[in-house]
Amino acid sequence: MAGNIFGELFRVTTFGESHGEALGCVIDGCPAGLEISAADIEKELARRRPGGVYGSRDEKDTPEILSGVFEGKTLGSPIAIVVRNTNQNSGDYGELKDIYRPGHADFTWDAKFGFRDWRGGGRSSGRETLCRVAAGAIAKKFLALSGITVRAWVSSIAGLQQPSPGEDDFDFDEIERNPLRVPSKNGAARAMAKIEELRAEGDSAGGIVTCLATGVPAGLGEPVFDKLDARLAAAALSIGACKGIEFGAGFAAAGLKGSENNSAENSGGGILGGISSGQDIFFRAAFKPTPSIGKPQKALDREGKTREITIKGRHDVCIVPRAVPVVEAMSALVLADFLLLSRSNRI
Amino acid sequence: MAGNIFGELFRVTTFGESHGEALGCVIDGCPAGLEISAADIEKELARRRPGGVYGSRDEKDTPEILSGVFEGKTLGSPIAIVVRNTNQNSGDYGELKDIYRPGHADFTWDAKFGFRDWRGGGRSSGRETLCRVAAGAIAKKFLALSGITVRAWVSSIAGLQQPSPGEDDFDFDEIERNPLRVPSKNGAARAMAKIEELRAEGDSAGGIVTCLATGVPAGLGEPVFDKLDARLAAAALSIGACKGIEFGAGFAAAGLKGSENNSAENSGGGILGGISSGQDIFFRAAFKPTPSIGKPQKALDREGKTREITIKGRHDVCIVPRAVPVVEAMSALVLADFLLLSRSNRI
Amino acid sequence: MAGNIFGELFRVTTFGESHGEALGCVIDGCPAGLEISAADIEKELARRRPGGVYGSRDEKDTPEILSGVFEGKTLGSPIAIVVRNTNQNSGDYGELKDIYRPGHADFTWDAKFGFRDWRGGGRSSGRETLCRVAAGAIAKKFLALSGITVRAWVSSIAGLQQPSPGEDDFDFDEIERNPLRVPSKNGAARAMAKIEELRAEGDSAGGIVTCLATGVPAGLGEPVFDKLDARLAAAALSIGACKGIEFGAGFAAAGLKGSENNSAENSGGGILGGISSGQDIFFRAAFKPTPSIGKPQKALDREGKTREITIKGRHDVCIVPRAVPVVEAMSALVLADFLLLSRSNRI
Amino acid sequence: MAGNIFGELFRVTTFGESHGEALGCVIDGCPAGLEISAADIEKELARRRPGGVYGSRDEKDTPEILSGVFEGKTLGSPIAIVVRNTNQNSGDYGELKDIYRPGHADFTWDAKFGFRDWRGGGRSSGRETLCRVAAGAIAKKFLALSGITVRAWVSSIAGLQQPSPGEDDFDFDEIERNPLRVPSKNGAARAMAKIEELRAEGDSAGGIVTCLATGVPAGLGEPVFDKLDARLAAAALSIGACKGIEFGAGFAAAGLKGSENNSAENSGGGILGGISSGQDIFFRAAFKPTPSIGKPQKALDREGKTREITIKGRHDVCIVPRAVPVVEAMSALVLADFLLLSRSNRI
Repeated sequence: MAGNIFGELFRVTTFGESHGEALGCVIDGCPAGLEISAADIEKELARRRPGGVYGSRDEKDTPEILSGVFEGKTLGSPIAIVVRNTNQNSGDYGELKDIYRPGHADFTWDAKFGFRDWRGGGRSSGRETLCRVAAGAIAKKFLALSGITVRAWVSSIAGLQQPSPGEDDFDFDEIERNPLRVPSKNGAARAMAKIEELRAEGDSAGGIVTCLATGVPAGLGEPVFDKLDARLAAAALSIGACKGIEFGAGFAAAGLKGSENNSAENSGGGILGGISSGQDIFFRAAFKPTPSIGKPQKALDREGKTREITIKGRHDVCIVPRAVPVVEAMSALVLADFLLLSRSNRI
Repeated sequence: MAGNIFGELFRVTTFGESHGEALGCVIDGCPAGLEISAADIEKELARRRPGGVYGSRDEKDTPEILSGVFEGKTLGSPIAIVVRNTNQNSGDYGELKDIYRPGHADFTWDAKFGFRDWRGGGRSSGRETLCRVAAGAIAKKFLALSGITVRAWVSSIAGLQQPSPGEDDFDFDEIERNPLRVPSKNGAARAMAKIEELRAEGDSAGGIVTCLATGVPAGLGEPVFDKLDARLAAAALSIGACKGIEFGAGFAAAGLKGSENNSAENSGGGILGGISSGQDIFFRAAFKPTPSIGKPQKALDREGKTREITIKGRHDVCIVPRAVPVVEAMSALVLADFLLLSRSNRI
Repeated sequence: MAGNIFGELFRVTTFGESHGEALGCVIDGCPAGLEISAADIEKELARRRPGGVYGSRDEKDTPEILSGVFEGKTLGSPIAIVVRNTNQNSGDYGELKDIYRPGHADFTWDAKFGFRDWRGGGRSSGRETLCRVAAGAIAKKFLALSGITVRAWVSSIAGLQQPSPGEDDFDFDEIERNPLRVPSKNGAARAMAKIEELRAEGDSAGGIVTCLATGVPAGLGEPVFDKLDARLAAAALSIGACKGIEFGAGFAAAGLKGSENNSAENSGGGILGGISSGQDIFFRAAFKPTPSIGKPQKALDREGKTREITIKGRHDVCIVPRAVPVVEAMSALVLADFLLLSRSNRI
Repeated sequence: MAGNIFGELFRVTTFGESHGEALGCVIDGCPAGLEISAADIEKELARRRPGGVYGSRDEKDTPEILSGVFEGKTLGSPIAIVVRNTNQNSGDYGELKDIYRPGHADFTWDAKFGFRDWRGGGRSSGRETLCRVAAGAIAKKFLALSGITVRAWVSSIAGLQQPSPGEDDFDFDEIERNPLRVPSKNGAARAMAKIEELRAEGDSAGGIVTCLATGVPAGLGEPVFDKLDARLAAAALSIGACKGIEFGAGFAAAGLKGSENNSAENSGGGILGGISSGQDIFFRAAFKPTPSIGKPQKALDREGKTREITIKGRHDVCIVPRAVPVVEAMSALVLADFLLLSRSNRI
């Protein structure tokens, strides 16, 4: 793992700026013989697109597979996927050229590289995540061969907690039916009202994504540094707005007694000592509200002066529902990598 | 990063089982010319040792530097450090040979490797962390050259929240004065009473470690997958009992409005878009209560039968204070690596 | 370095099959601020194209930069370059679907992956090297900032030895003037006659490429495993038909006395103990004759039966002149990587 | 692969200076369940020791296994092996503190790190190779489970060519019977006479090591950059005095016609397109004469002045026979790594 490359054996390299020519990824290390089509990828990309409720740029992302697939199956050689940018409005960003938007990476990227693509966040735009979703679509197909599935949903949005699995109002099938990807019809209605309120205010909301992996065999994860939870944490925290993660009982476990935590049902979230236990794996990832809001804000410019700005362009009130397929994709990439690595556990 | 190797440029390989001959680490990639002595390492290792309040095996860990240092300075070649095990009581564990202790990695390591060192957790023992602390001692010295410091403390223990920086009762100097590493004299007294209560019950406690890095220049962190927070998260979650992490406003940010989060003081925890902003970096890491408790518990054996066990041996009531130098060490390793990587940011 | 990824800091991932949609590369880790244009890349790609003398498929390779470059300069983000395949004649290969061509990777790729793209060698085609040349063009520009140049030429072809630097008939300027890239006008004429003879016979020729890097500062190369010569050797041997490499006095040094070798001028080829000495770096890489010949040959088919085949399609009599820019590119990639790594040598 | 770490899945980290406390290695990624003992390692280390004919420091290298092996079998955790230095005569080197010995890495290491351990070459000493041999001993045991063997011998020494397999005078059993490790009794006698002549002159000799791997299944090697021959080349060239390598017909192939090379028996040396073909794998590695000779020589000192020096201490007239187990070890490490990697070839 380094920079824009993710994974040891199932390795993904991504590229592309928000308003450049194209974004894409190269998957190196996917075993040969896996059935893959552009439709598999397009289906997942569509889940990442903004729906009517979001308000941001709506772009149909059409993936093209450039290599690595022959007669419908992976060759074992690198799979390159490219998605052209077609709907850029760079003009919206012209006046932000010399200003560092609050809460964005504008300043830090400039501090690092001395130079940046100021159009829509450039490489630090959320648009970058489409490459993860494309690669994740392939990882999911690989995992499916072993009966592993990865699903995520919005378990809290704009401060409104949604029901948990096992609770009355929780319904898995509801998740993909509502644009907020919450697992409850009632919860969706309440949250949508709140989102509309924030939109009217020109404000934004954050939320929490819960991710669940089922069918993971016991024995995945590497000792010490490369624990399964360590890698999943890196995977989640590598997503733009993610600010925290917890596995199983998580932060609440810190306040329990050992006897309580030991006897709780799957308090480890399916991972013990960094290795999967064969139980369901689950974690919660916290996403901050998107920093692009319609209200006027104070911002620093390149000369260090404070200026008042109002960010134009199209922005989501809440990006958390769109983070759901990204969290799934990153988790699938981690699991695919460990599934391959586990082939070397024993002589 | 792979298995027992951590870091891209400042690379640490660790080895050793709890009751084997020795534990140790090899640091490959530490720049030449850094002043290092065994005393630097021993000082940090001493912070990891159990004090009187803990109850677990008290072993003086004497590091020996085998290579990489000449006339008191690093050569640029690998620095190997070895600590002999001297106080093992393997006998305590004999009856656990065929039993999987609840909450421990016994079952998962067996599932992975088909074979394990059952003496004291073997490689999955907390004793493994001394290698991290040894390597971290060197990373800290390297960081100090750039004015970077990393400090951690126990901000919550056994469910008792401790004061935060800026609050009345918070005192940095108190941290290393009390065995619980809480930043408050009063807080320490209350927490100690609670710990003693749990000890009497044969139970254990978890807690939260807060880590603060100061003096970090803007521009550290790599784009996309290798974000500074992603790597710090992997670093923290790679520590045995860690079950969660949050940066800056963390999980609370998920419930804020964008306008609130944008205007809050350093809500990003010193990191924006995965790159350091020049502000203080801070995060909170949650540790579950140690699963080794004195009470009788149900456990599975290798045949899948449930048995009642009582774990003998010496165990900490709460390992969280001892995790403090480990969290510091891991954070220092991440920062040292990124400091070197940042030398390649620009032409 | 793993599979289709090359380099530690200046990392190149390549992709693409000979008769697929496109080939390309992603350069991750190129420092920000480097001036780059598609023309820089196209110029090097043109050097890799077959000239009139070769006989193989003549395809104009037009690179498109998809990311990582903004306003003419590198952003520090991944640079993706794609070259479309436009001139594939898959039909030529249809009858080779179930036959393993002698001297090619057909059988071994099938043995490895159980499946292959049989059209023109698929991923194992020499066409793959255009991605290396594209990436190398960028590495060369980066090296030029430090005054480092990399040049290669054909020093032996079809068994005809060409003059060496310092010898009367050696002329640097001649190299790119003749299609065989030999450094001598007379040598070129003699070699061309020999090549034409082989073409008439339906046979092919091999040769040796000499590579010279000037301006390399002392101190590049990593200790022990990652020696500069070790990496250059891997770089050269990773090129399809390369079967050997030697540095400085090379194989001849094995027969010298220590006193002779010590006192010879730069017998180490600019590298001592795996680290550059500040002198010119040079090595020789041996290329076998291309196995695709016009003569009828015996070959195994997928059932293990011996069949007689005559390979159709367009093939070079000698690919060695076209390997020249590839050797340069790979060497430039190695040097660029080590140049970045050397920034971490000292505190 | 980076710096002092070798391999992707079967990863070896080595450490240690010639005259420091100890040398050693950590093997991370060796699968669990492999039977290993200190005796396995000691046996290989003994092959690396100087015999009576060499003249250099004769040190019994006693390996201690510190971790990763339990009840005689590998645990899947890192295997640390340490060998103490016991016979250092640093005094011999005192006067070389400020002088760069010709043909050695003294100058280049200083140029790189600004600082070096001048005692016996420090980290660049040939003594470093014992760590490779220790790790290789484990790789060999792992390979043996799949019926793979790696053997090497001296095929040319001091300019005297030895017989090749299939030739009358070639005898595998002779190799380990004579101190020069040549495969012929007569050849050994002639070569020994030549070596004695050089010793009398205070001079040294180089030679060529041929390495043969049998039982390697078809399908090992990774596409494009990580070809089996590319990695073996890096492995060989990473050994101190190695200056060249060739596979199969090697440099001679460069002068053959395609029809000749295609029809020659195993001209590819068991590798086609970077992937093993199932045939015997063989290569030749050229070693320069050791630069430490008894004759007075000109050398540069740290101030750039030329001085005449005579190198004291104990030195081999020819280190090539001692390189034999090192070449075997490195080849075994490469093959073990690819054997594990090949488990991920297919779904």
